[in-house]
Amino acid sequence: MPRKIALVGIGKIARDSHVPALQASPDWDLVATVSRSGKVEGVEAHDDFDAFLAARPDIGAISLCLPPQPRFDYAQKALSAGRHVMLEKPPGQTLAEVHALAALAATRGVTLYASWHSRMAAGVAAAKAWLAGRAVRGGRIIWKEDVRKWHPGQDWVFEPGGMGVMDPGINALSILTEILPEPVHLTAATLEFPENRHTPIAATLDFTGNLRAEFDWRQEGPQRWDIEIDTPQARIALRDGGARLEIDGAAQALDEGPGEYPALYARMADLVARGDSEVDLAPMVHVADAMTLGRRIAVAPFAF
Amino acid sequence: MPRKIALVGIGKIARDSHVPALQASPDWDLVATVSRSGKVEGVEAHDDFDAFLAARPDIGAISLCLPPQPRFDYAQKALSAGRHVMLEKPPGQTLAEVHALAALAATRGVTLYASWHSRMAAGVAAAKAWLAGRAVRGGRIIWKEDVRKWHPGQDWVFEPGGMGVMDPGINALSILTEILPEPVHLTAATLEFPENRHTPIAATLDFTGNLRAEFDWRQEGPQRWDIEIDTPQARIALRDGGARLEIDGAAQALDEGPGEYPALYARMADLVARGDSEVDLAPMVHVADAMTLGRRIAVAPFAF
Repeated sequence: MPRKIALVGIGKIARDSHVPALQASPDWDLVATVSRSGKVEGVEAHDDFDAFLAARPDIGAISLCLPPQPRFDYAQKALSAGRHVMLEKPPGQTLAEVHALAALAATRGVTLYASWHSRMAAGVAAAKAWLAGRAVRGGRIIWKEDVRKWHPGQDWVFEPGGMGVMDPGINALSILTEILPEPVHLTAATLEFPENRHTPIAATLDFTGNLRAEFDWRQEGPQRWDIEIDTPQARIALRDGGARLEIDGAAQALDEGPGEYPALYARMADLVARGDSEVDLAPMVHVADAMTLGRRIAVAPFAF
Repeated sequence: MPRKIALVGIGKIARDSHVPALQASPDWDLVATVSRSGKVEGVEAHDDFDAFLAARPDIGAISLCLPPQPRFDYAQKALSAGRHVMLEKPPGQTLAEVHALAALAATRGVTLYASWHSRMAAGVAAAKAWLAGRAVRGGRIIWKEDVRKWHPGQDWVFEPGGMGVMDPGINALSILTEILPEPVHLTAATLEFPENRHTPIAATLDFTGNLRAEFDWRQEGPQRWDIEIDTPQARIALRDGGARLEIDGAAQALDEGPGEYPALYARMADLVARGDSEVDLAPMVHVADAMTLGRRIAVAPFAF
C-alpha cells in the first residue's frame, strides 16, 4: 500500500527527476504539489504551504525540491506539523540549520532524509564494495562542466547561498565520502572568485590521503565528472558522475539499478518504515571547510 | 593525587595562561613540555613529539596550545598513543579534522576536550542560568578590537587557516552558543576582506532570533567585547568578554571563580575522571557557515 506524499517546488529538477520517480514508485502516491507557479497534471495543486498543511493532515510525507535558500522554513513547518521530510541536495544553506532540522525531527519522532542523489549512481555501490578494506594511496576528482550549459542565466548560483561551483562539486564529495573506506579531511584549498561574483567559479581541494579535487564551471567541450582512486592492487575510476565504473581502465559490468531518484525515494520509504532518519553532512562539511580554509584568488569577471 | 600532564607549544598563550593554571592546579602535575624553542623553568623539556611520546608513556594527558595549523597531527599522534588530549580554541583548522579526532578518541577510549576558554569567563554561567527558559527577542554581539595591539606583526592571522577576525569572534560565538536557551543558525553574513589578505578583517553575522554579531579588527581606542540579549523581562549584557554581567544596565555581583584557564583544566580533570569527551563544534560551525554563506566585500589593504 503506497504512502501519500506531497512534492514542494515544481521546477526543472522536480519535473525531470522527482515526478517521474514518484509516479513509477511502488512505495509512494504523489497526491499533492505545492508551488507558486508549477503544477503536475492530474495532481492536486496548492500554492500556499501553510494552507496545504492545514488542509491535508492525511499526507504524512513531504519532499522538498525548492532551492536551498527558502528550504529551511518549509522543512521546519513540515517537521513541526509531524510530517516526514526528504530534502534535495544540499540539505541547507548552512550546517547549523540542518543540525536544527535534525534535532526537530528527532523531537517530533518523524523521518528526516537529507538525500544525495549522486550516491545512487549505478557505479557507486560497486566502487564502495571494491574499496572496502583496501588501502587508499591517493586519488583525483575532476568535476568540470559548463555553467552556461547547466545553469543558463541563473545568476543566483553566484549569489551568497548559491554555492557556485561547490553546487556540482558537492555531488562529487557525496560520492567520495560514500566510497572511501576511511574518512579524509581537507588540508588546503584554492578558490577562484570572479571579480564580480560572491561564490567561486573554480576550486581545488586537497585532502589527507593524497586526494585532490578539481572543480571548474568554465569547461567548454567535453564535460567531465570523474573520480579516480589509487590502491596498491589497482586504480578504480567512476566516470560520468558515477554511472560507469572502471578498474585499471577496464569497464565493469554494473547492475543499472532503478536510477538515482527512484533509489532515493525507495530509501525514503525504507527510512519511514523503520522510523529512522538519515542526515549525513560529510559532503557539506568539506565544502564549509574549503570555504573557511581556502586561499582566495580573484579571476576574470563572469557573465552568462 | 594529581595526574601527570604535558604541555605542547610553549608560546605566549602557554606562558600567560596554561602554565600558571597548571602550576596552581590541584588536579594536574605539569611534568613535561614539548616545544621547538620554549621551555618552562623546572620542567622537563622535549623538542621532538614522537620521542617524547616514546620516552614518557607514564604521562597520560597532553594539552595542545600550538596554532591550529599543526595541531591535528599532534592530536592524532597523542590520541593514537592512548593519551587524553585537551585542545586550545579553535579545536582545528577544519570541522572534518575535529570529527576525525573525536572518532579516534572514542575508538581509543580516551578523553578529547575541545576547550572554549571564553565560556569560563566569570559572567557566563550566571547569564546562562538567567536566560534558561526565557524567550529571546533579539540581541547584539559587538566584538571590536585592534589586531595591531593583540597580534602585532602576526601575518599568519591573515593567511588561510588563520581565520582573520573570526579568531576573536569565535570567542563571542562560544559564549553565545553556551548561554542561549535554544540554538540559532546563520541567515546571512558580510565579510570584509582586505584586498591583500586571505581572511576577513571585519564581519557581520545575522542569526535567526533577531541576533546580530559585529566583529571588527580595526578598532582603535576602547576595545569592546559585549554581548547583549533582549528578553521580555529585561536586557542582559555580558561585557569585557564575559567578565561582567549587567541586567537592565545594573552590574550584577558575580562569583569570580577560578579564572578561565584554571576552570578549563578543572573541567579536563573531571572529563578524564569520568571517562568522557567534550567536543562542541557549534561555535566553529557558525564560523564555517559564515565563510560559506557570506557576501564578500573587498576593503582597503591591511599592513601591520
